[in-house]
Amino acid sequence: MQAMVLRGKNLAIEEVAKPTPGPGQVLARVLACGICGSDLHAAKYMDDMRAASRMSGRTPWDTLDGEQGIVMGHEFVARIEAAGPGAEEWKAGIRVTSIPVQIAPDAPGGMLSIGYTPRTPGAYGEYVVLSAALLLAVPDHVTDLAAATTEPCAVGLHAVRQARMQPGESALVMGAGPIGLMTTIWLKKEGVGHVTVSDYAPARRELARKMGADLVLDPAVDNVLERHAEATGGQPPVVFECVGVRGTLKQAMETVARLGRVIVVGVCMQDDVIYPMVGINKQISLQFVLGYSVAEYAEALAAFADGSVDTAPLVTRTVNLAELPAAFAALADPTDCKVVLVP
Amino acid sequence: MQAMVLRGKNLAIEEVAKPTPGPGQVLARVLACGICGSDLHAAKYMDDMRAASRMSGRTPWDTLDGEQGIVMGHEFVARIEAAGPGAEEWKAGIRVTSIPVQIAPDAPGGMLSIGYTPRTPGAYGEYVVLSAALLLAVPDHVTDLAAATTEPCAVGLHAVRQARMQPGESALVMGAGPIGLMTTIWLKKEGVGHVTVSDYAPARRELARKMGADLVLDPAVDNVLERHAEATGGQPPVVFECVGVRGTLKQAMETVARLGRVIVVGVCMQDDVIYPMVGINKQISLQFVLGYSVAEYAEALAAFADGSVDTAPLVTRTVNLAELPAAFAALADPTDCKVVLVP
Repeated sequence: MQAMVLRGKNLAIEEVAKPTPGPGQVLARVLACGICGSDLHAAKYMDDMRAASRMSGRTPWDTLDGEQGIVMGHEFVARIEAAGPGAEEWKAGIRVTSIPVQIAPDAPGGMLSIGYTPRTPGAYGEYVVLSAALLLAVPDHVTDLAAATTEPCAVGLHAVRQARMQPGESALVMGAGPIGLMTTIWLKKEGVGHVTVSDYAPARRELARKMGADLVLDPAVDNVLERHAEATGGQPPVVFECVGVRGTLKQAMETVARLGRVIVVGVCMQDDVIYPMVGINKQISLQFVLGYSVAEYAEALAAFADGSVDTAPLVTRTVNLAELPAAFAALADPTDCKVVLVP
Repeated sequence: MQAMVLRGKNLAIEEVAKPTPGPGQVLARVLACGICGSDLHAAKYMDDMRAASRMSGRTPWDTLDGEQGIVMGHEFVARIEAAGPGAEEWKAGIRVTSIPVQIAPDAPGGMLSIGYTPRTPGAYGEYVVLSAALLLAVPDHVTDLAAATTEPCAVGLHAVRQARMQPGESALVMGAGPIGLMTTIWLKKEGVGHVTVSDYAPARRELARKMGADLVLDPAVDNVLERHAEATGGQPPVVFECVGVRGTLKQAMETVARLGRVIVVGVCMQDDVIYPMVGINKQISLQFVLGYSVAEYAEALAAFADGSVDTAPLVTRTVNLAELPAAFAALADPTDCKVVLVP
């Protein structure tokens, strides 16, 4: 089968062996798979990811090995084609998604991240092998493109839940990429009265408005702190940092209100400079978040099914497998939001 | 009267006007006043403090002005000498302490930090003016030296309360200076089963043992993470960063367990480098803490009064006013722990 393989920093379509489902696994044909910022990061910063992994103890990135060749892709919806022993209840033709994890009793923690190890290839190819125990059936009326956004939608939900928003609190979302927008969607769905979103890219600001942001700012021309304070009467008690480049954490710490919370969702791949005194003076907290629970993943999918969340506007482009390597390069330009592979 | 005045980075004993208590104030003769790390910082890093203040919005350091001359000193116990109008209930001879704040309706927030503005001189002198509404009488059996440690003791209490320790959780305290030791005292008093303390200085490690630490380590020879894990079965779920120099925050983030909390008590006066990926991988939080509540201050004093906390071993030296400038310089060498001025 065809798949996009990452070797070192090089991405290319290669012919690879079609996988076979083992016990408790299914083989599924990929219907759609979103391009995640973490994949862009992995292609560019794998050495940094490995270094951070060493500093963190065991993490999903531990087994990341560019030389061996990795098929990434973990925001997938797929159609069952065959079931391995013990997974026969998952009949051919059922559309499924799941958290991007493969159960692997011999691996540390009993599982492996799909799309970040040579042993568990992801969905940037024609087929993917999934653990039956983790599968969620996708309801018929949820489109492939919507289902492919379940994963980033769950990331936004998890970030919002970790913030433990209190009645009357406003929020600032820094960055209107897919994760910032998913965060915005859930903040508004959970009833947060005022959400400010800031982004340099006009197209992403437009999406933030569509997703229900109450105030949308361009940091190039707007003083975000002052404009938020004008609208709400004070600095934001909660700031979601959804950019993840050097310097944004420092900005978030300066912008958040006294006694406030900075939820760090954006992943800065390198070292970063902060001013601890600013944190001390204001007695703030930084909560770093990652991923989601199995329940949050299911809740995101259920929100598509019941129509309460619509992420369709966030998918600004689809590409086929041959176009995928170029799409990675093009995402440096933030005109697009979520780009989805449809093999 | 005599007082030590900070001008720029220079500390000298000067003759200054003896203050007069205004309405709601008392004049008190200083009995003892501890040297605080923040004062050492202020003498050395005032420009950094001002810069961080600007980044934080309004803070206690806003009005810090070295050129005008400042009398620092905010860890005090004093004996009432005279009362201003409306404060007559505070009779001459009563020993008092209070949070280092002067009520000032015309100031931002309605108060000024004692010892950090030219308008509200601190207790590095013969006399100090205090707000009657904030005074706490010191019970007769609490010594002057103990009472002078109420302030840093309250800082340790506040840090421990902010950590919201759960049953069964262990803690690592990085740094056995006065604040690290006060934190250790409260962790043990509150029933935390295992507290590891790390410090490079042998004298401070010895104090940590005296204060009840279960495991005391020298980072120069011990692998703190591994030794703590051997003793408790895992990485520390809570790390108190009580050093406050460049690099210790990064260490704390690497040492804390997955899903753990870093309580940032130490005040790094400059910019500092962290690896956000380490925070993300482990989903940790950094809680920056400052000061204490009025109730926590009173609780620290009450713990001296009921004998449940004894900070006497932490006071390793007393100095008189003439010796005070040299004592500031000498505290760069951490053989001493808390040094207290007895004018």
